[in-house]
Amino acid sequence: MNISHIEHIGIAVKSLEESIPYYEKILGLQCYNIEEVADQKVKTAFFKVGQTKIELLEPTSPESTIAKFIENRGEGIHHLAFAVDDTAATLHELNDKGVRLIDKEPRGGAEHLQIGFAHPKATGSVLTEFCCPEKAE
Amino acid sequence: MNISHIEHIGIAVKSLEESIPYYEKILGLQCYNIEEVADQKVKTAFFKVGQTKIELLEPTSPESTIAKFIENRGEGIHHLAFAVDDTAATLHELNDKGVRLIDKEPRGGAEHLQIGFAHPKATGSVLTEFCCPEKAE
Repeated sequence: MNISHIEHIGIAVKSLEESIPYYEKILGLQCYNIEEVADQKVKTAFFKVGQTKIELLEPTSPESTIAKFIENRGEGIHHLAFAVDDTAATLHELNDKGVRLIDKEPRGGAEHLQIGFAHPKATGSVLTEFCCPEKAE
Repeated sequence: MNISHIEHIGIAVKSLEESIPYYEKILGLQCYNIEEVADQKVKTAFFKVGQTKIELLEPTSPESTIAKFIENRGEGIHHLAFAVDDTAATLHELNDKGVRLIDKEPRGGAEHLQIGFAHPKATGSVLTEFCCPEKAE
């Protein structure tokens, strides 16, 4: 696997509306995209910091894993996403190495990415995503 | 304040020795520095991923804030560090904006950085560090 950089850091928040002003007014970052990911039951807001994005995640349903995360642990950093060349090949390589996965095959994420998660029990309790841009069919 | 990139992501671990192999053998990253920070009662291990470092933090004393973090929440992502031009000026700016701080003045961190933390109550529960290289006196 070839990790080039940290693509994004996912942060669970109760409300984008209440959280965005800290990133914009205090940190001086700019929210350049707000996108709903129906599959994951979240609304996301993106900020760019050098090579890496900050992705705020607001649950859109109490069944969202983000809603459950906030209920159990409160708001805060939720996951770390590494940029790889090929998400499918990376997941297959991890599977072959015996790493427990949440996704054995990639699925679509926000920002036109192909994403897949390893299981935090296999990654030192850091929920870890691997992602690459969607490929043309 | 001018944030150029994410300088590092701090991850609390019980043992560097047990955690480093995941980063090296599974993710293919290379540990390039191991450093003890006596002031913070931690031993740290660093990996570079594009512009950003991953900093593993192992407590060297049960009184370490990292030991307490692990006791309360388990291993996992501990803090996010933004690279700024000038840590002292950034902390003063945050203080002037009414942001609650852990450090009102910078102190020395690992990797020859001047560091300062904002209080997680002021940053959406994301423990946030601001840092810049040590300046020549």
